[in-house]
Amino acid sequence: MSSGKILVAQGGGPTAVINQSLAGVVLEARRHHGVSLVYGARHGVRGIVNEDLVDLTRETSHNLEMVAGTPGSALGSTRDKPDLPYCQEIFQVLKAHAIEHFFYIGGNDSADTVRIVAEEAHKVAYPLRAIHIPKTIDNDLVGNDHTPGFPSAARFVAQAFAGANLDNAALTGVYVGVVMGRHAGFLTAASALGKKFPDDGPHLIYLPERVFEIDRFLADVKAMYERHGRCVIAVSEGIHDADGAPIATKLAADIEKDAHGNVQLSGNGALADLLCEEIKAKLQIKRVRGDTFGYLQRSFVGCVSDVDAREAREVGEKAVQYAMWGQSSGSVAVRRTGFYSVDYTLQTLDAVAGKTRTMEDEFISACGTDITDAFRLYLRPLLGSGMADAYRLRPNPVAKILQR
Amino acid sequence: MSSGKILVAQGGGPTAVINQSLAGVVLEARRHHGVSLVYGARHGVRGIVNEDLVDLTRETSHNLEMVAGTPGSALGSTRDKPDLPYCQEIFQVLKAHAIEHFFYIGGNDSADTVRIVAEEAHKVAYPLRAIHIPKTIDNDLVGNDHTPGFPSAARFVAQAFAGANLDNAALTGVYVGVVMGRHAGFLTAASALGKKFPDDGPHLIYLPERVFEIDRFLADVKAMYERHGRCVIAVSEGIHDADGAPIATKLAADIEKDAHGNVQLSGNGALADLLCEEIKAKLQIKRVRGDTFGYLQRSFVGCVSDVDAREAREVGEKAVQYAMWGQSSGSVAVRRTGFYSVDYTLQTLDAVAGKTRTMEDEFISACGTDITDAFRLYLRPLLGSGMADAYRLRPNPVAKILQR
Repeated sequence: MSSGKILVAQGGGPTAVINQSLAGVVLEARRHHGVSLVYGARHGVRGIVNEDLVDLTRETSHNLEMVAGTPGSALGSTRDKPDLPYCQEIFQVLKAHAIEHFFYIGGNDSADTVRIVAEEAHKVAYPLRAIHIPKTIDNDLVGNDHTPGFPSAARFVAQAFAGANLDNAALTGVYVGVVMGRHAGFLTAASALGKKFPDDGPHLIYLPERVFEIDRFLADVKAMYERHGRCVIAVSEGIHDADGAPIATKLAADIEKDAHGNVQLSGNGALADLLCEEIKAKLQIKRVRGDTFGYLQRSFVGCVSDVDAREAREVGEKAVQYAMWGQSSGSVAVRRTGFYSVDYTLQTLDAVAGKTRTMEDEFISACGTDITDAFRLYLRPLLGSGMADAYRLRPNPVAKILQR
Repeated sequence: MSSGKILVAQGGGPTAVINQSLAGVVLEARRHHGVSLVYGARHGVRGIVNEDLVDLTRETSHNLEMVAGTPGSALGSTRDKPDLPYCQEIFQVLKAHAIEHFFYIGGNDSADTVRIVAEEAHKVAYPLRAIHIPKTIDNDLVGNDHTPGFPSAARFVAQAFAGANLDNAALTGVYVGVVMGRHAGFLTAASALGKKFPDDGPHLIYLPERVFEIDRFLADVKAMYERHGRCVIAVSEGIHDADGAPIATKLAADIEKDAHGNVQLSGNGALADLLCEEIKAKLQIKRVRGDTFGYLQRSFVGCVSDVDAREAREVGEKAVQYAMWGQSSGSVAVRRTGFYSVDYTLQTLDAVAGKTRTMEDEFISACGTDITDAFRLYLRPLLGSGMADAYRLRPNPVAKILQR
């Protein structure tokens, strides 16, 4: 006889729709007769080991719907990456509270946590069903067509570049926009979806899937500036040299690393400033501006893809269904079945845990600084309805009189 | 007998709604029988002296409506600040093309240009009616309740901080967001409109209307961090020390100045990075992140206040009406007549040209790091309909079992 107690938590970086997945789990679980209590852990796995739990059974359906539409992680999140002893502690808390279904919404590190916790339960024949629910703006989970959270962030980046391009066309110069994405360039590539007219920016896109060479970069910028009289550039924070060393850290004095051993790339404007200084110094272009999109791209309130929102809801619902009606732990995956429709499958945790997907070659143009139509077709339906569109005045020149 | 020829141009930084004013001028002018041709100058006053003009009479009404809904300056803009000889050149071109109505959409520098050009025409009794149409995200034009462009930028800043606050609540630490505004703190103050719950950020707001002292800043941050376990901070790019020296330039090696002699503050992340480094070093807080909102806040596609859009349209329409039916040149001003409604007046160009409005004392709290309810009441109706709202899970703690 099942305890009917489930626990849900959110890990890693928040997204615009991660609360849709939370609401999906809670609302779906509450309509299953076998479920007696739905707990949430505050600040991810850290909340589990600290027994910092809340009873989501006592939350109203209405407020859950309102929270679902709110960006950020409503339960709080954590950057903790549990090792084996940490996962054993998690399991001890789950056992103490007789939790038999564990749902963790997060990226590939979170999937790895779910995998280890499931193994601990399996070792002692404890009846735990553990389900990883995909979430990441980086779109870097293997076995998924795309990951919830990415489409809304991509929508922000596309609209940001659409606007930056208009601004740059009005006051010409060079504009560098730095976009999140340590290993995968999907989000940076989304900048291209802000283009409408052939001479719109971004004119150059630099992805972590390709080696970054500063000399070639400067030559590219020079050529585009000469062709268009201006240049809009999208750069991934994760661009690196041939040895894999991040360009962002080449100038930074003291580098901050997180619990995963990753160098801190976001949260400062160093990379944009470095590239702008290079362009000013080497190309003698006067008006060079750099923006680092930073946390805006994953947290901005009011820029959500409706497609992303409904899929994020569904992966939460499906997770509960797999747990209740299925036979095994696993990771929910998004599979594309039409143009445009999706269905969901349950991957093994091994298949996704700790692995990183990067942009497929077919999505990157041969020159390495643009994306292909295949990527445009891939991304466009994900951005959802109501994308802002840009219009231009048509040219109707007036003949000169003074002819100076 | 009037030539019936009018010229419109856009100056200074683009906004989300400056094309509404352009469309307002063109569409209103085209329905006046006295108007034969509507010209636009490409890239502001520079397009006038270069005779780089387009015939907007040949543009379709439909496309003008589409352009109106597009951010950026559709005619192009310029940072040129004309002196007397430059204005004389402008006047020569106006005369050569028999332009008798000149409309310039811009800030207080643009108003000054209009003023000088009008004087040149007056000197030789040339029948020019010159109207300045207000536009600036800085909200720093005197004699206006607020300026078109500001509400949409304020909406972006409010929504950005609403999201940054949610993100910071999920992954706690210190977050610094740097907002545009050289002398006026209105846009930075708009960050407070993203707050909903009493413990929401921004917890501290630094405006150029108050002297910035780094030691007091650090003490403020420390106190807020201890109270909330986190701290979200809004900082104006224009913050300065007691001598008026911008904090942003205290570390920068070579300072870029524009044609107006202003130090370049936007387009790099230096100020945010400087403040973050100070917080990390002096307060030993590990997770400190800084974003510089940069050009996103004035160009982002898809974040427009409907109130702003309609007022920007109306100042364009009113400008034409003042020119056609009025007796003098001047600057259109926005006057608040209700909660919420506006009407328009025509100020003298002298009253607005080259002058800078800053935040009134009644809008800034006594502590200097927050805004008052008077400011909330002032700004809220300007942000328009459909502002995103943030919801929280209500606390329903689960009793601990392990009690570790």
